[in-house]
Formats: sequence, C-alpha cells, structure tokens
Amino acid sequence: MAASDRDSQFKLFSDPVHGFISVPKRTLLPLLQSPEVQRLRRIRQLGVGYLVFPGAEHTRFNHALGAMALMQDTLSTLADKGTPINADEREAALVAALLHDIGHGPFSHTLEHTLISDFRHEAMSRALLIDLNERFDGRLSLALQIFDDAYERPFFHDLVASQLDMDRLDYLRRDSFYTGVVEGRVGVDRLLKTMRVTPAEGGPDSRVVVEAKGVYAVENFLISRRLMYWQVYLHKTVLAGDKLLQASFRRARRHYRNRSLNAVEGASPALAFFLSNDLSVEDVRDPEVRAQYVALDDTDVLYTLKRWMGSTDPVLRDLSQRFINRKFLRTTFLDEDPSTEQLSDWKRAIADRLVSEGISTPATAENDAAFYLTLDHSRHSAYERIDSSICILGRDGTVRELSEMADVSSSINSLTGFVEKPYVCAPKFLDIAATVRA
Amino acid sequence: MAASDRDSQFKLFSDPVHGFISVPKRTLLPLLQSPEVQRLRRIRQLGVGYLVFPGAEHTRFNHALGAMALMQDTLSTLADKGTPINADEREAALVAALLHDIGHGPFSHTLEHTLISDFRHEAMSRALLIDLNERFDGRLSLALQIFDDAYERPFFHDLVASQLDMDRLDYLRRDSFYTGVVEGRVGVDRLLKTMRVTPAEGGPDSRVVVEAKGVYAVENFLISRRLMYWQVYLHKTVLAGDKLLQASFRRARRHYRNRSLNAVEGASPALAFFLSNDLSVEDVRDPEVRAQYVALDDTDVLYTLKRWMGSTDPVLRDLSQRFINRKFLRTTFLDEDPSTEQLSDWKRAIADRLVSEGISTPATAENDAAFYLTLDHSRHSAYERIDSSICILGRDGTVRELSEMADVSSSINSLTGFVEKPYVCAPKFLDIAATVRA
Amino acid sequence: MAASDRDSQFKLFSDPVHGFISVPKRTLLPLLQSPEVQRLRRIRQLGVGYLVFPGAEHTRFNHALGAMALMQDTLSTLADKGTPINADEREAALVAALLHDIGHGPFSHTLEHTLISDFRHEAMSRALLIDLNERFDGRLSLALQIFDDAYERPFFHDLVASQLDMDRLDYLRRDSFYTGVVEGRVGVDRLLKTMRVTPAEGGPDSRVVVEAKGVYAVENFLISRRLMYWQVYLHKTVLAGDKLLQASFRRARRHYRNRSLNAVEGASPALAFFLSNDLSVEDVRDPEVRAQYVALDDTDVLYTLKRWMGSTDPVLRDLSQRFINRKFLRTTFLDEDPSTEQLSDWKRAIADRLVSEGISTPATAENDAAFYLTLDHSRHSAYERIDSSICILGRDGTVRELSEMADVSSSINSLTGFVEKPYVCAPKFLDIAATVRA
Amino acid sequence: MAASDRDSQFKLFSDPVHGFISVPKRTLLPLLQSPEVQRLRRIRQLGVGYLVFPGAEHTRFNHALGAMALMQDTLSTLADKGTPINADEREAALVAALLHDIGHGPFSHTLEHTLISDFRHEAMSRALLIDLNERFDGRLSLALQIFDDAYERPFFHDLVASQLDMDRLDYLRRDSFYTGVVEGRVGVDRLLKTMRVTPAEGGPDSRVVVEAKGVYAVENFLISRRLMYWQVYLHKTVLAGDKLLQASFRRARRHYRNRSLNAVEGASPALAFFLSNDLSVEDVRDPEVRAQYVALDDTDVLYTLKRWMGSTDPVLRDLSQRFINRKFLRTTFLDEDPSTEQLSDWKRAIADRLVSEGISTPATAENDAAFYLTLDHSRHSAYERIDSSICILGRDGTVRELSEMADVSSSINSLTGFVEKPYVCAPKFLDIAATVRA
Repeated sequence: MAASDRDSQFKLFSDPVHGFISVPKRTLLPLLQSPEVQRLRRIRQLGVGYLVFPGAEHTRFNHALGAMALMQDTLSTLADKGTPINADEREAALVAALLHDIGHGPFSHTLEHTLISDFRHEAMSRALLIDLNERFDGRLSLALQIFDDAYERPFFHDLVASQLDMDRLDYLRRDSFYTGVVEGRVGVDRLLKTMRVTPAEGGPDSRVVVEAKGVYAVENFLISRRLMYWQVYLHKTVLAGDKLLQASFRRARRHYRNRSLNAVEGASPALAFFLSNDLSVEDVRDPEVRAQYVALDDTDVLYTLKRWMGSTDPVLRDLSQRFINRKFLRTTFLDEDPSTEQLSDWKRAIADRLVSEGISTPATAENDAAFYLTLDHSRHSAYERIDSSICILGRDGTVRELSEMADVSSSINSLTGFVEKPYVCAPKFLDIAATVRA
Repeated sequence: MAASDRDSQFKLFSDPVHGFISVPKRTLLPLLQSPEVQRLRRIRQLGVGYLVFPGAEHTRFNHALGAMALMQDTLSTLADKGTPINADEREAALVAALLHDIGHGPFSHTLEHTLISDFRHEAMSRALLIDLNERFDGRLSLALQIFDDAYERPFFHDLVASQLDMDRLDYLRRDSFYTGVVEGRVGVDRLLKTMRVTPAEGGPDSRVVVEAKGVYAVENFLISRRLMYWQVYLHKTVLAGDKLLQASFRRARRHYRNRSLNAVEGASPALAFFLSNDLSVEDVRDPEVRAQYVALDDTDVLYTLKRWMGSTDPVLRDLSQRFINRKFLRTTFLDEDPSTEQLSDWKRAIADRLVSEGISTPATAENDAAFYLTLDHSRHSAYERIDSSICILGRDGTVRELSEMADVSSSINSLTGFVEKPYVCAPKFLDIAATVRA
Repeated sequence: MAASDRDSQFKLFSDPVHGFISVPKRTLLPLLQSPEVQRLRRIRQLGVGYLVFPGAEHTRFNHALGAMALMQDTLSTLADKGTPINADEREAALVAALLHDIGHGPFSHTLEHTLISDFRHEAMSRALLIDLNERFDGRLSLALQIFDDAYERPFFHDLVASQLDMDRLDYLRRDSFYTGVVEGRVGVDRLLKTMRVTPAEGGPDSRVVVEAKGVYAVENFLISRRLMYWQVYLHKTVLAGDKLLQASFRRARRHYRNRSLNAVEGASPALAFFLSNDLSVEDVRDPEVRAQYVALDDTDVLYTLKRWMGSTDPVLRDLSQRFINRKFLRTTFLDEDPSTEQLSDWKRAIADRLVSEGISTPATAENDAAFYLTLDHSRHSAYERIDSSICILGRDGTVRELSEMADVSSSINSLTGFVEKPYVCAPKFLDIAATVRA
Repeated sequence: MAASDRDSQFKLFSDPVHGFISVPKRTLLPLLQSPEVQRLRRIRQLGVGYLVFPGAEHTRFNHALGAMALMQDTLSTLADKGTPINADEREAALVAALLHDIGHGPFSHTLEHTLISDFRHEAMSRALLIDLNERFDGRLSLALQIFDDAYERPFFHDLVASQLDMDRLDYLRRDSFYTGVVEGRVGVDRLLKTMRVTPAEGGPDSRVVVEAKGVYAVENFLISRRLMYWQVYLHKTVLAGDKLLQASFRRARRHYRNRSLNAVEGASPALAFFLSNDLSVEDVRDPEVRAQYVALDDTDVLYTLKRWMGSTDPVLRDLSQRFINRKFLRTTFLDEDPSTEQLSDWKRAIADRLVSEGISTPATAENDAAFYLTLDHSRHSAYERIDSSICILGRDGTVRELSEMADVSSSINSLTGFVEKPYVCAPKFLDIAATVRA
C-alpha cells in the first residue's frame, strides 16, 4: 500500500543532542546496519576522556549519526537559499557525513600510531569507503568523489571536511553536552542558518561561506572550540590516560618483537595481529589488514588490558592495572622543554622506585623507567589555518576572510596562531612542578 | 547584486525554545512588523501566570513566532514524505500560524468576557486578519481560507486548528520551558516527524495523521498537556489572580454604568472605551471597536490598576492594590458546589470584615462582598474531544482513532473524559477548606 | 598548610546531569577508586538499551556518582528543615548511595539469571560491601547497617531503598537525559525540596515523607516513571536484544555442559567460570565467586560474542553475529498467551528455516529453534507497591498514603495496579502479529 | 503542630534557570512581598533587549530571586569548606542579594540619566534599603552593613558586589538562557563550588578566592561575559532602541521646560513628576522622590509612549510611534569619531527629510534633527578592573591575581583592557556605513 510504503522511507533515532534523527531507508539505513558502522558503537568518541568526564561515554556511532543529521539540516538551508541540490547529491552528502570517520580505531586517536605507523584515519576511512562501495554496487561513488574533493561542486566537500564541517559542528556540540562543560556549547543552528553557497552560479568556484550576520556565530564557534581544547581534549588527566595506554602497548609490542609471548598472552586476536606485525599506512591496501582493523574496537583494548593485569611481565602488569583501575601518572605542563640532565635525573629516580617496589630489577630498571616517563607537546593544531579558511559574505556582496572583518579582528587575533606546550607525564611521587620551580 | 539579494530572504530571530527562527522577508516580515503583531509583545502568554511562575513572562509575540517556526518544520517533513506544497501554500500556512492568535486581548483569556460579552478570540482574530489582508492587497487571502477551513486541502487547517496544531505544540513546550515545570516538556520534534498527510491523493478528504511509530509521542503529548493543565493553567493561585483581576474590572464597569466616574479616573483611553460601552462579539464588525482593541494591551491594564490604587472607591482601591502588590484571595477546590446557605454565610462574614476594615459601610457591605467571593468551575476542556480527533496511520495502512489502538488504550482511557471541579475564591481569613470539612 | 589542606576535602567531577559533583576525599574518594567501583565504568546502565537509543551509553559508575550527589542535596534539605544529621551518618549515607548497585553484573539485568540462578543483585551488593568494609577497616559499618535497614534511624534506609530513593531519582532523570525521551524528565529538585523526616522526634518510627505542596511533584514522578517503562525499559527492541543475548548464553552454557568446548573457545576467563559452573545466589558467599564476578563486565560479554562469531557451532555463531551486528529478532506484544499449538507451529517454521539457511540439520533443527523463539511477559513491577508506600504530610500535620489524597486520587488510580503483558521474540520472517490476528 | 510549623519555613518558587528556589518565610518572604520588590516584576532585566531577543522578557524580580538562590548555594559551599556562617549572617546575606538591585528604574539602565541626572542605582538601592529597614524594625541592618562593605567579615560584601558576585553570576546565566545565546552560558555551579574564604582565620582580611582547580571556570566566565557584551548588551539594535527611548524622553522634557504641556498630555503621573522636576542623585534623600520612584516602572513608560503616539508635537509623536511599533534608527559602529563637518552634514540631511515628511517646518528642522542623530561610545566597562580583582588560591597556599597565573595568562590578556567604540544612531536612509567608507 502506498501509505505504508512511504511510512518506511525513514527510520527514526532518538538522539539527546539533536532530538529525533530521520535516517532514509534507502542506502543510508543499510549502510548504518553494516558491520563497519555498527563497529563505531564500540569506539568511544573521546578515547580515554570518559575516565575524566564520567558522562562522556558517547561513541563514534552516535557522532556519525549526528553529523549526518546536521548535513540534512544544512542542505535544507542551502536549498531554501536557492542552491539546487538533487536527490543523488543529497544522498551522497549524507553518506559522506555518516562515513567520514569510519576509519577511526579503538580509543579514537590514542592508539592510532601505536598500531600502524604514520597512520592517518582518513586513509583508512577512504579504503573502507571503497570496500563498502563495492558491496553497495557503486552507489557510494558520488560520496567518494565528495570525500576526495573530486566532485564538480566543491562546496559539498567543504561540508564534509573544512573548518566548519558537519564533523566539527557535531563533535563540539556533542562533547560539550556529554562532558558537562556547558560553556563549550556551540549554537550550531545559528551557524547552519547563516551558511550559503556562493556564487551559486559559479560552478567550480562555488564554496561555503557565512553571511555577515553570522560573524558572531563563527566567533562563538572558535571560542567554544578553544575552550573545549584546553578543558577537554588537552585536559591533563586525559593526556595522562593517553600516555599510559600508549606505554602499555609499546611495552606489549616489545614482547612481540622479542618473542617473549607468554607475557602478552590473552590479547585479543585482532590486537595481536597489529602488535605482531609492523604495519604502516601503506598497508591499508591489504584486505587482511582492513578485515582485522574492522574487527578491532575498544572492547579488544579493555579486554586485553584486563588479561595483561595478570601478565608475567611486572611492568606490563603494572601498566595495565594502572589503566584499568585508573591510577594514572601525573601530567605537568612546562614553560619549556626540560634539559637532558633533568630528564635523566627523573628517569633515574623512577628506576630506583621501580626496583624498590619490586617491579624492576636493577638490571632492567633504567630501561623500564622509559615506560613511566613521557615528554610530549600539546598542540592546539586547529588554530593554524583559521586565517586561511572561513569566508564571510559581506552585506555588499564581497567575500572576505574572517580575520579581515573589521568588527571581529581584535577578538580573532587572540584565537589564531599555533599554541604548543611541553608537558611531562610521570609518577606522582616525582613532584615535577616543584623540581622545575626549584 | 544577486548574493546580497538572497542574503535578505530571511531575517533571523533568536528564540530560547526553538533556536534560530528564519522569518521570510516576503509578506511574513512586514506582517511581523505590523502594529497588530507588535502589540502581541505586550500581551503575556499566560495572563496572570507570571505572578505564580516568576520566569513565565513570555508573550504572545514569542509564541506566534514559535508557531510559525513549527509550521516551517512540519511543512518540510510533510514535503519530504511526498506531500507537494507549493510556495503560495507554504506562505499562507506560515501566515495563518503567525496570526492564529492575533485577536487575543490583554492578559490573554482573563479579561475577554469582562470586556466584550460572548467574546471569542477567533472572531476577533478573523476580523483583524481581514483588515490586514486589505492592507496587504489580498496577499493573505489563502491564509484566510485556511483559517476558515475553506481551502480545498483541509490538512492545512488541521495544522492551524486541531488537537495537534502548531499552536498547542508551541505553547505546551514554551510554557513548560518558561514555568520550569520540566515534566510538562513535549518532545515536539518527535511528533512533527511522525506526522503525514493521508491519503495524499485523496483531495478533499486529506487530513493530518500520525504514523504508528508516533503513538507514544502522542500519548506523551496528552500526558504533558494534562500535567500542564493541573499544574499551571488551573493552578490555584493563577485562578485566584484571574478572579481578582475580573473583580476589579467588574467593579469599575459598575462605576461607568452609574456614572460615578471620578472613581475610575485615570483609566487608559482604550480600557475606558470598553468599560463604558456594553459590547458583544457582534461589535467586532465595527472598525472603531477593532481600532480600540488593537490599542489595548497588558500595559493598559497594569497602568490603570496602578491608577485605581488611589481611587475614591475603597473597594476598587483595595482590589487594585491587592492585584498590584499580589495579595490575592485564596482558591479552594471543593468536591461539590457549596449550598446557597453556605455561600450566604461566607458573604456575610466577608461583609463584616469589610466594615471592620473600613472598606465598606454597613449599607454597602453585602453588595461589596460579592467582589470578594467567587464560585466557579475549573474545566479541563481539552479532554472532551480527544476520542474524536487524533488519527493514527497503522502499519497496515488503515487509519484509526487513537483510542482504538490496542497498545495505548488503557493509558488513554485515563486521559479522556471531561474533568470539572468547583472552586471558591475568597479572602484567606475565611478558612473555606476547614468550614467545608466541618 | 591550612588552606591547601582544606582545598583537598573534595574532588570535583563534571556530570552532564547534575553539574559539578563534589566527592569528599575522606572514605568516599578511596571507595570510588576501588576496583569494585571502577568496574562500574564498564557496565552500561541500560544493558542493551544503547542499541536502541544511541545516546544511552551511560554507565553504572556515572549513576552511582549521581545517586551520591542527590543524597548530598537531600541530606542538606533535611538538615535545613531541622533533622540533625551528624558527620558519620552523612558519610554513611553517601557511601550507601554510592555502593547501592555495586553488585550489578554485565549488561545490568539482562544476564543476571543466566550467570547465577536465583540471582538478586542486592545479595551480591551486600557481599561486596562487606568485602570493602573489611578493606576499609570497618569504616563502612554504618553504611552497611543503613543498607540492611538495621540502623536506628530508618529514614536513612528510605533514602537508599524505597519508592523515592536516590537510585530511582537519579536513574529516571539520567535515562531520560541520555535516551532523549524528554517527557520522562523528572523535576528531581522539586521532589527533594519537599521531602522531610517525620516525626523528627519519633526515633525508630521516623520516616521520609513528602510535604503536601509536593504532591504534584510525586504524581509527575510516577507518570514519568511509567512513561520510561513503556518507552525505554520495556521497549520492544530492547526486549529483543535482551532475549538474543540470553539465548546466546544459554546456547554456550549447553556446550559447557556437553563438554563441546571447542564451540565456545575464546570466552573470557571470567565468563567461562560462570558458564562452566552451575552457581546459585548462595554461592556469593564464596570469595572465588566474588573475585570472578568483580572481574566480569560488559567488555567480557562483547569480546566473547565477537569470538563466538567464529564458533564451530553454527547456531552460536549466528546468534553472536546477530547481536554484534544488531540483527535482532522481532518482539510482538500479544493480548494473551499463545496456545501450545501456535507455539509448536512457529517453532516448526523456524526449524525449517534454520535447515534451509544451513544453520541446522534436520536432526537438530527442532532443538535449535528453541533459541530463536521466546515467550515472556513484560511486567511493570514498579507499580505493585505504589499504594503502600509514598506518604504525604498534610498541611494539618497528618500523614497519609498518596492514593488517599483527594486531589490526586483520580490520576493515581490510573498509575497503580500491576501491568503484565505477554510477548514473543521470533525471527522477522514469522509475521507473528499477522498470524495472531488471522 | 511542630511538623506543619516547620512545613512553613520556606515558600518554593519554580524558576526555569535554577529550578526550585526556597525562600525562607522569615524576613525574606515578607520582603519579597513588599511593593518595592513586587515592582521589580514590572521592570525588564534587559531594558529594550526584549525588542531584539523576543524571548528575553525576564524581569528584575526573577533575577533578584535568582541572585538570592545563588547566595544560598554559595554560603552552603563555604560552610562545607569550614567557614562558619551563623543564622543572622546567612539571613543578611540573602537579604543583600535579594535587594541588591532594588533601586533600578524602568527599562533598567536606559532611562536612568534621563530621569535623574548623575543617577547611580546603587544610591537609590541604598536609600530604599534604609526605608525597608525602618519598616522591618531594623532587621535589615546587617544586610545594610554588608551592602556598605562595613561589616567586619568583608567576604560577604564580595559576594554581593565584586567581579564574581551573585548578581553577575545570575544575570549572565539568566540572560544567556532567555536570549537563546547559548554560548554565553556560564557553568555557575562550577564557579560556586570552587570558591572559598581565605584565610578563614584572618578576620578583617578575609576575602573570597577561587581555588586553583577553578581557574578554567573563571576564564570561561570572563569569556562568556565578553560574548554577552558584544552580542546582547551592546547589540546594535539594542543600542538603537536605547537611543530612541532616550530621544523621546529628552523631547518630552523640553515640553515640560517650555510649558508646552499639551504635547505631553497623558504621561503617567510618576513619569510626569520626573520629567517636570530637574532632579539629581542628591534628591534620593527626599521621601517624595523615592515614593514617586517606587511608583515608576516599565508600564509607565510604555503607557506614556502609547499616549504620545497621538501627541500634538509631530516629533514626539513620530519618536513614540517608532518605539512602540519598533521602527528604530540604525546603529553604525565606526573606527573613529566622525568629524564635526560630517555630523553637520548628516544633521542637515535629516532636517531636510523631516521637512519633506511633514514632521518639521524649515524653521524647526535643524533643531528637531538632533533627536534623530546620536553619537555615543559603547564601552565594555567590565574589563577595566579585571586585572585587579579575581584572586586564585594556588595549590601551594599562595593567593595570586588571576592574570598572574601562568596557565591562563595568554588567554586572559585578550580579555583585559578597556574596549571603547564610537557609534552613530541615525535614520536608515542615511547610509552611514557607506558615507564613512567613501
């Protein structure tokens, strides 16, 4: 019957952030039901963030759905403003939004370079998109073109990958919601409603711009973004959790290399695959690598760490227990990189402690200490390109970079520029802040 | 220039309930800027409700804008589901939603019958819509047809006036938001997303139905509605405020009739017009009546009461002071109507008190007491037609009344039926509850 | 130093539902850091609910923290109203709220009877509380008394286990928040602010009551609770997920009993322990059982199902794949229990299908079909005791059951009573609804 | 009876921002019911802001209640951290928070200097506080001391008047809520939970500080504050509304001075009092001035403008009609002050237009034009003292200014400093932006 036929055009999902989300039953719903997308249900959006913000258990699945929902709203706004969008383009844009992050690995960014060197999740996303396209008989080809910025109307790519793409708009709003960091909230609907494509007639040159009345919405967005970086994404304890997880896996990989495999017994098959092979980003071409990758999610990591809590290697055992029971190392931000002597002193102190705690022997302690001391740099990488990319359509019809707008320039100045800061993760008994001050 | 031309298709309004609202610059924005619609900024949505829920200062302007915004969303949903809606229909539907309540008077429902007997705000809304249509050169004719249910596609009327119309959906959500009665919150987007028109091909018979998957959303809506009635619209103190305001105006009207005009000195010109003429709903045809009506808003009422706080009539003075300084009478709900003797006893006790307080003389006291004692009945009128009007489209394509759905019938049963309850408003010293119990 | 000493009295957690939560560093924080409580981070509050409501990934850890926060607010309200609460009692009440659910197993309620027969999570919570009390040198003894309702001030127990306890108030609010079912939202602060203890002087008889002005808040709470039951906890697809998970584990247990262990290879050690032993609730006394239980969480279940996706048993393989890739059976609610013949017919049809899909052989099909067909009854168990337990303190000082209050009785009537409904979970090809109708 | 006695210790108010607010029935509730506080129900918090943000109808009453509620929470937090606060101090602090803004006039800040020269609302607040204290038999004396910063524990004054006082915390949160500018939302509970008094033992030197872990909360607060300034408080159209309202009253005052009183007929008595007398801030000592001031609220202003829409003075008539029907002038921000010639040119163009529209005669036009052209400067005054006033308690026990904290300094730098910008309000036909650019 006609009515019930149409009844089934959409499936509704209830989302606490965007309300009801309508997923078209054509192409989109089958994609959503694919193992590749269902797997995102088992990958936390914020990696170890849930160990710092207890409400932030949300997953990449939820985020993918949200990015698709924002794409629907944005396309409607653009259509209302006179940019024609046909049914194929619409479907392709939704597909691209839904799948944009499909290549993320367990704990999102934390482990990516530990598992595959030079990893870029975009490369994996693209490879998986091609696999899906084959299974979907080429119906994702246009989405793939948009993803690759190879489609003749480049504004679609802007909506999928740019400073103001659906990905960023959804994750900032969502992460603010789930962490309870209310000031990070972005007025997403304001931003969407002030976007347009210009010049609509311009063909290859067409791109997404923000109307003059949306300048404050953009500024708010950048400020919210900065807030979220410093208070969530680069939160000291989040960084400490990242480093601990990475240290556990670096330690485990050594056992695979040394063939001391009894120490890493119990690792999930997919994790064992990545730890026992030295893979680089080139290897995403190998179907076996992709199959193993799709089998891998947060469950593997947590299960494996729980098994390693009983490892025969006291260091791996200790690192795993620390992670599972949330006994992290401490992060200390520094004004400048510590000297080599300083680092050696710290490492020696850690080594002594490891011996006294019975974790290391005097012979191994120095070597083991390296897993308990990390020097790294927090980077607010999102800032670097601000000046080059958000464009504003003035009331007089001209298009200018955001930072060239008279009204906002003073505020924007404080948001641009690349911020980088050294930090050290080390056991708490080492009072890094005090030693640096002294 | 083309771009900036399109830039001006919409004006954005920031609304705390629905986010950004886009008002089309064609027809809608000029209408919004008309004195008739701007006047709604000076009429509180909940009448005296703000004196009980301090956050509930929201106005009919805000609500009209919200109803228009929900209409936009609903039309987009219906179009997505295959119901074609052309540009003229779209504009007309938005106009009808924006103007549906334009005939409301000061303090919304409280004073309507005090100012014009047999008043129905729909009659005034229609009359003002016709005036506007003239000034807008007939551009509102289709909206008027929809309003009158005279348009050939009746589902548009359903969206403007039915159990699930945009008016109800906006005001329940909005009143819950502003009063802080969080349980009254309605998941409006769920409801909208499950609406459709059926049969789309059916021409005159087409109407709005809810898809089977929306049954719970409808049930939630009805439950929220009931909650809001008992906890907000029929709140004891809200009723007490209503009765006090009505009593003040009944008293004033008597002075106009008695020509004891010094007692009502200072009334605003528009209020004086309505109090000194005995008008009925027929008189909305008179352009002078409409002009005076449009000049009338909450400001007139509050200003006038402030003036009457210094009236030469001690009763009018006392009633006005009580309202402005919020010394209301007390509402008591009863199981049944009090007897005539009971009412006489109460009135006598009030008369005695008025004398002892120096407000009345023994000669006038009995008469004056009538302004301090009201017997009325709270009616939850919304329930009566529930069984006759919300239709559900089953998964098998059949359309049935909500109450016939197996899944919900037991819950719905408790929501249907007309609830009516007597209540008395009287000074607090009369402990009505105690005397009734005794 | 004094200042920084005090600085460390609380650790703050950011919660999207309650805002900032202050955890006292004395007793509470060390408890929070215990493996038993950290484990709750790996147990989803709503079991399989996240597979239906994609935002509902929240865990029991988050909920335990929230219940503790509500306890803090409630104790402050009660103290403000003149009920003295000393520091020991305060700490004990917070401990009891934090640990009230510590005995929950993976996927909350879904698997409890599959893993341990006659399981009651309260029994396990109590056993774990005793273990913790030992490790905390008896500092949890008072909390244990409160938990057991053995403390001389019984109102503390009411706050931990009653119709209006902190558990229910937090989970309803939280589940509404994360599922996006906005109408289920409870105005928790209203409820808390109208609670009091009466008679304060009454010693052993003292209990928690709600003041008359809180009656509507209670009614709202019960309505919200009902809404959440029908729309979340007993959602068709949630029940379908439950049944599929249980079927997988029943199937696996059979292999442990039959010693066909190659089929269940790869199960996590803790799960293997519970599947290979036939344990009953008595066995929670065994420390080994408790140790294995504490090692068990959602991770074990998901990891194990992922392994079983490659099982040598085609039925276990199919059930696991269905769960991980979310190909659930379909739930159909019925008006009455189906007849034995009906069930046999369905089972036969399933058996045929299993054979044709190559999952079963003709010899095993009938037997295997039992894992694809379940008849059960949804029970809204929360209703049964409503009439017996929420007490209202009238304005005249008398205490009455909620259902005896004149104002609310008609609404409450529709909320009381025990609702039970048969339902069947079966493969979608069997159109149960149609066959029952026919 | 004891129980119902205690039942009446608090009256609850439902607030959409803070939830349920408990007002103590002792002292606070009678104060709330005083005409001075009830009058705040008729004064919009954001002045003309509701004409730009249609949801922002909230009043000073609502805000005063909110500031009191935040004071309750803050005092509880401070007490929990070991700062003893006795019942008298608690009550006085609540009174001070409730009454802190009682001296505000109609439309909040817009008209204050038009009605009374050199007006400071603090002076009026103080005078009214003294009046109330007399009527309350001296029970507000301690509150008055706190208000005057004359109490021996100065941290109470900090909570009433400082960079982080209850006033600011409530209004930012509340204005963000009602305007829908979501990014301006402040995590108030975070801030409150990290406040403390130090040194508790220090007597006269004790002050409010924020703990180190609250630094980000403070930074968020300052960023939110800046956002709200630029996007709400100094919004172009808000400034345009302010200037129009001021111009109407400047025009009316001229008629009072010129004794051309027929032009201003119908003004409310209280407004007429202020327009016909030249009062300065000294005159708040006069009880008659205070009585008239208390009689004055938004109602007077709107009523009077509605009357002036029919004034015999075409300029007053036009200005009033523009305000009531929201036909504002246009605000243009400039990089620098326009030259005297430029201003003369603009004024001449306006004069010509007034003549051609029949509003002015050639003789009066130049003079009248002054009411249609304003040059002013927006000042973000809140920034100037930032560096001098928010103190952070470090983890090492030392107290430092916010801007001296290493972690935040770079961000804070961009927030400090006084921002001032010239702007012109003029009729739209004068395209100020274009003429300046040219």
